[in-house]
Formats: sequence, C-alpha cells, structure tokens
Amino acid sequence: MSILIKNVQLNGKETHIYIEENRISEIGKKLEADKEMEGKGKIAFPGFYNTHTHAAMTLLRGYADDMQLMPWLQEKIWPLEARLQPEDVYWGTKLAILEMIKTGTVFFNDMYFFMEKVVDAVEEMGVRAALSYGFIDLFDEEKREKEIKKTENLVNYIKNKRNSRIMGAVGPHAVYTVSKEGLQWCKEFAAEKNIFIHIHVSETEEENRTCQERYGMSPFKLLDSVGILNKRCVAAHSVWVGEKEIQLIARKGAVVSFNPTSNMKLAVGSMLKYREMKEKSVHLTLGTDGCSSNNNLDMVEEMKFAAIGLKSFYKDPELAPAAEVFKIATENGAKAFELNGGKVAEGHLADLILVDEKTTFFTPNHNPISNLVYASPGSVVDTTICHGKVLMENRKVKGEEEILFKARERAKKLLFRCEESF
Amino acid sequence: MSILIKNVQLNGKETHIYIEENRISEIGKKLEADKEMEGKGKIAFPGFYNTHTHAAMTLLRGYADDMQLMPWLQEKIWPLEARLQPEDVYWGTKLAILEMIKTGTVFFNDMYFFMEKVVDAVEEMGVRAALSYGFIDLFDEEKREKEIKKTENLVNYIKNKRNSRIMGAVGPHAVYTVSKEGLQWCKEFAAEKNIFIHIHVSETEEENRTCQERYGMSPFKLLDSVGILNKRCVAAHSVWVGEKEIQLIARKGAVVSFNPTSNMKLAVGSMLKYREMKEKSVHLTLGTDGCSSNNNLDMVEEMKFAAIGLKSFYKDPELAPAAEVFKIATENGAKAFELNGGKVAEGHLADLILVDEKTTFFTPNHNPISNLVYASPGSVVDTTICHGKVLMENRKVKGEEEILFKARERAKKLLFRCEESF
Repeated sequence: MSILIKNVQLNGKETHIYIEENRISEIGKKLEADKEMEGKGKIAFPGFYNTHTHAAMTLLRGYADDMQLMPWLQEKIWPLEARLQPEDVYWGTKLAILEMIKTGTVFFNDMYFFMEKVVDAVEEMGVRAALSYGFIDLFDEEKREKEIKKTENLVNYIKNKRNSRIMGAVGPHAVYTVSKEGLQWCKEFAAEKNIFIHIHVSETEEENRTCQERYGMSPFKLLDSVGILNKRCVAAHSVWVGEKEIQLIARKGAVVSFNPTSNMKLAVGSMLKYREMKEKSVHLTLGTDGCSSNNNLDMVEEMKFAAIGLKSFYKDPELAPAAEVFKIATENGAKAFELNGGKVAEGHLADLILVDEKTTFFTPNHNPISNLVYASPGSVVDTTICHGKVLMENRKVKGEEEILFKARERAKKLLFRCEESF
Repeated sequence: MSILIKNVQLNGKETHIYIEENRISEIGKKLEADKEMEGKGKIAFPGFYNTHTHAAMTLLRGYADDMQLMPWLQEKIWPLEARLQPEDVYWGTKLAILEMIKTGTVFFNDMYFFMEKVVDAVEEMGVRAALSYGFIDLFDEEKREKEIKKTENLVNYIKNKRNSRIMGAVGPHAVYTVSKEGLQWCKEFAAEKNIFIHIHVSETEEENRTCQERYGMSPFKLLDSVGILNKRCVAAHSVWVGEKEIQLIARKGAVVSFNPTSNMKLAVGSMLKYREMKEKSVHLTLGTDGCSSNNNLDMVEEMKFAAIGLKSFYKDPELAPAAEVFKIATENGAKAFELNGGKVAEGHLADLILVDEKTTFFTPNHNPISNLVYASPGSVVDTTICHGKVLMENRKVKGEEEILFKARERAKKLLFRCEESF
C-alpha cells in the first residue's frame, strides 16, 4: 500500500509526500501511488505522542471537577472506578482514541485496568500505544501477587498479538501505592521483557513527604535505589523535584512526561522545573493525563497550556517558545519510545497530520508552528495518518457515531450502578 | 422575523426556544415561526461577551511570539502597526468577527485605530460591539487635539449609524500613554455622551512604578482622582492591584476585564486577584485581548485558561469552578455593558449558541457546563445567533472564504510594506 500526498506544505515549501507501507519513503517526487490525496492548502506536521494518559477515563469526563485532590479521588473517582467493567474500558478507550485521532495524536502511553480491552481498541483503531496495567499492591503481599499476574497476562496478551503498533509496558502506579517489593518486581520484569516502565512520580508535595517518612528519601531517589530509573522509565508529572533529583533523572536518561493542564487544574502547587531540566538535558515529553483531570486528550491544546503555563510560572515570556514545545510533543515523545517518528522526513514512520490552512486560526500564516501551538484547537487537524494508514480524512473517522453512542450508554450505566450501591 | 428552535436541551431539559425579532419571547411552547431549526441533540447556551480585545490584530497573529514585552512592542508590533491602512483594519476585523462567530462570541469590546472600518465590519457581520478609538497623546498637547478629534469623529460616526448593536465608547489607552489632561477630557466626553470608557490598567508592575513616580499614586487611584472610575469604566487586565485598589474598584462599581491567556503568555508576573476581587464583589468579566498576545479570540478556550490558571496561581483546585467562570464570560459581560443578554431566558436578548452534543468533548455529558469550559474548544459551537439573527448554522458563516482570502492578502501586503521600509 502506498499513498501520495500532493502539493502539500512542509516546512514552508509546497512538496509531495510519498508513503510506502508504514514509512515516509520519498519527499519531493510525484510518484504513482495506490492512493492519492490532494494536499493543496494543507500543511503537514508530525502527529503527536501523548506520553501519559488513562484513556478510558473519558467516561468520567466532567463527572467531578473543582475539588481538592483527596475528596475528589475518594468520594468521586475511586467509587466509580471500582464499578468499572471491561466493556466500559473498551468503549471509553475507543472514545479516547477517537478524540486523539480527531486532534492529531498518533501514539499514547496508557495505564489503567482491564488493559486487554485497551489492546483490542488500539488494534482496531489504528493508532500506536504503550500499554501498562496500573499495578497497585497497597503494600499487601497477597494483592501484589494478583497485580503481578495481571501484569504478566497483559504483557503476554500483547506479545501474542504481534502488532508492531502496540508495546506492552509495566505500570507501577506510584511509590505511595506500590511497595518496594512491588517496584522491585516491576523493574525485573521490565528488564527481562525488555519493555518500558510507566509511573507517576512526585506529582504532589504530600507524595514526597510520605516517601521521605517511609524510606528517608525522595520518590526519584527511591526509584533509583530500586534500579527503575533508566531510559525506559517514563515518569509522569515529576513536578516536585529539587536539583539533585533533576541531576539524577538526567544522568539516568529517564523520560519525563510533562502534564501541565492536569497539574494546573488539580493545583498541585508547583510547575515542572522546565528551565532547570532543560539545562540538564532531561528528556522532556508531553502528556494530557486522563480526562477527569484535564478534561480532554487534545495535545494541540496541551502545547498551549505547556508554553503559556511555563512562561507565567517562570515570569519569562521567552521561555518554552512554540517550536520547542512542538518538538517536545512530537519528536521527543517518539524518541522516548524508541520510535523513528515525530518528524515528517524520509525514512521516518508515516505518522503525520494535515492541517487545513483555510481556517481563521491559520489566517494569516506568518508562522505555522506558532499558529498550531498558540492559535489552534486540535480540531484544525483535517487528516491523521498513523503507520501509513489514513485514520481520518476530511475530519471523518470510521465508526465515529457508534463510538459516541456506546460510550455515552456505558457512562450512563456506570453512573447508575454507582448510585444504586449507595 | 421569528425563529423556533425545536427539541433543544436547555438547563438539562429538552424544550423549544421561540425568538421574536431580537428577543427570546417564549420558552417551552412549539409556536409557529418564520424559520424552524431542529435542536435535537444540541444544547443551548448564551453567547459569549468578550470585554477586551483589539480585533484587527488578527493580522499580526503569530508574527511575533515568545519575546519580552518591550522588544516585542518596539521591534515587532509597533513598526507593523505604524504601516496599517484602513483596509487592513477592515479585513482584520472581519477575520476576527468570523473567528468570534465560529467560537460562539456575540459581543466584543474593542479598542484600535481606523475604527470607522471596525464599525462597518460589525454592522455587516451581525455581532454586537462597543467600539473605542485607542486614544494615545503621549503627553503631547498637539497630539491630544488630534486624538480628541478622532474620538469625536468615531462616536459621531456610530451615532449616525443608529444601529442598536453598536455602541461608541472612549478608549484612553493607559495611564502611561495618555496625559492627565487627556484622561480628563475622555472622562468628560464619556459623561457628556453617556458612553463607556475602555482602558488598560495595571497590566504590569512597571506600569504601576512609572505611575507612582509621575503622580505619586497607583493607576487606579489616578483614574479615580480624575473621576473615570465608575460603572461605565471597563478596566482591562487589572493584575497588579493591592487591597486598596480592589476596594476602590468595588466601591466605584468599575468593570474588570480578566485576560488570563494574554497575561500568562506575556508573563506579566502575576495573576488577577480573583479571590480578593470576588470577596469584594468586583464586577468581573472575561476578555481574550488581541491576537498577537493570545493568539486567538476563542472565549471557550479563554474560560479554561481562566479557571485553570487561577487554580494553579492560588494553589486551590476549588477556586473558579466551571459554572462561575461561565457566568463571568456570559452574564457578567452582558451586564457590564447594560445589555439584557448572557442568559437563555424569556425576555432576554436572542444572543445564544447551540452546541452539538455529538462530539467527543460532550461525550459523555455528565455536566454540560464542565464539558464546555474544560473539555471543549470553541469549535464545538454549531450555531451562533445574535440579536435574533442566525450568524452561523452548521458551522457555516456567510462570506467566510472571501474573508480568509482578503485577510491573508492584506497581512502579506502589510508585511511587505514593513520590510520595504527597512
């Protein structure tokens, strides 16, 4: 299968992009292809790599906002999650992937429950993902054994799929929900299987305090003492860190997923130490977090929150310019997962989007990257291509109506089950 | 002319909205109308009132970002603005209004140059506006006389239009660009004509410092000493204020336009004193500012930046909940300009929008206001009605293609004139 995108703008010039199988094989030549797409008036960008989310939480979108973190979790989110069924996760994830495709995202790093259902949803919808079961042993040995089993099952399930778009990962939830033994097991299993670790780290000051009390060290130091910190560890949030933690993250090459909207909405009390991390060349990537703390999965919007949130926090309008944040949301995310994507260039994965220039947000077009980062919502994306397959064209995604219908139905039933039990 | 919107959701119930001329005259009855619109699967909300912008600056969108305030103004914005022609302002404003209509805004409070062209654009496109010439005398008497003339001309031009959607206003730019005599004249002229004053106040710490040096008092105190502070004064930004200024604003009933995205992007170094202003019942409204410091005019996005920016700044996730910010962007804005709008209710102005529920952002729909504020971009708006006229239906706006084309052309020529002169 080959695709030719004719007369499309790329890096300020009109050109042609030729895709063979899952790669961009030629740029510039108008080669014959199985499928031709007219790119006139459209701009090509790489797709986005969302490095931290909980996709199925779309079902909880708008269910509880504007609350303190603990009452929000204990009174609202956890009771609902306790009543989740596999089919909820399946349709919630389909809804999430639909939203991603419609806003130009081609990859997501997910952590949740009933993850086999997430694998199925990703397989069907054509995006890429790294999928981990949310390992939570609450310092209990019996529970730990169950979580180990679930993690092993997921990784096996994914292996048997033999789908190059889907990679299994290990998801120890956080240092306050997983015992040291649990972390140890996760580290060994990830090393054995040669896969990624996905974990929440230092999201709140409280998390750091309890870690200090329990272990006499910060969460990042604890992770390092267990041997988890390396290039295949993706640390979400990573807000409450000092100079030593930043040096440690940089030295170990661990990946940080910056989640500005979630951090600001939940008011975690600080912001990513962007300037300091950048100085130390920390591998920074961008993620939306789940829909109950954002409340969408739009990476285009997330870039604006990242750039503007940082400028405001550091009182420096020059910090985090558009092109830098764009790179973090694309190339850096792809690199973190050892994917040859994040760039529209020959030999790279055919993970790209087309934006229609005929919108107010791209008029005038002095600077396409600025327009994408600062002016546009994700809905400027007209076409989304992942792994050489067109997942959206003219804003149409296959099966969209059914997904919206089923997801709405599942969310209603979930709420009903939850209310019934009170 | 009458319109019936059938089977539409309003405040959680399915109902019918009947519009006669420019008012919502009945809710609930399925009356016969000149035009029937199907509202099934759509949700009605009031339109948005943008209380601070410079519409024609759409032409500068993305031209200069990520810079310190003064080099940004001196090296980039002002040289371009010096070469603006009336036709630039006309097409730039048309582009701005197109973007507003497409994101649900029905009113804007504008300050710029060649304002007669803005009047024409507003008249043609069907939204409401309060329009002021940006009065800048730079403490020079001769220049002051010219600015007085231009202000008088605009107000006369608007008066002669006899268009109830358009109100003239007086726009002393700021206390650092207008002399005390200039402010005095503005105050007297506004009182004589019974119209609003639109001014930038305490946007930066530097502005406060220079005002203190020149007058021995803060900008708000200075404005009060001149007699400008009252219910018909709209103070944009108002970031750098202390307890005394907040008390003064509250006592005088002056209107504050909160511009979170602009303040964060330009990193003015603080945030609106929302909690303290709310405690004192300051009349808070919301504005996007111009497109070179935002970079769009999407009030839906602005609500998210307002809510999330405030939570983050105050480290309080309960502050500025969705419904409160929504009220500020709608009802409070309408009230500030003495318009009986901002609510979808009988007897109110027919300024309303319909949102299509069949989008991921409104799926599921546990809470429509939360979905609008936190999940949606302005592009969820399907229909925009202002003053009883349908300005957008199924996301189509009359003349859209021509506006995009002409605005792009004007922007290119403007840049060319600017580069030529170097």
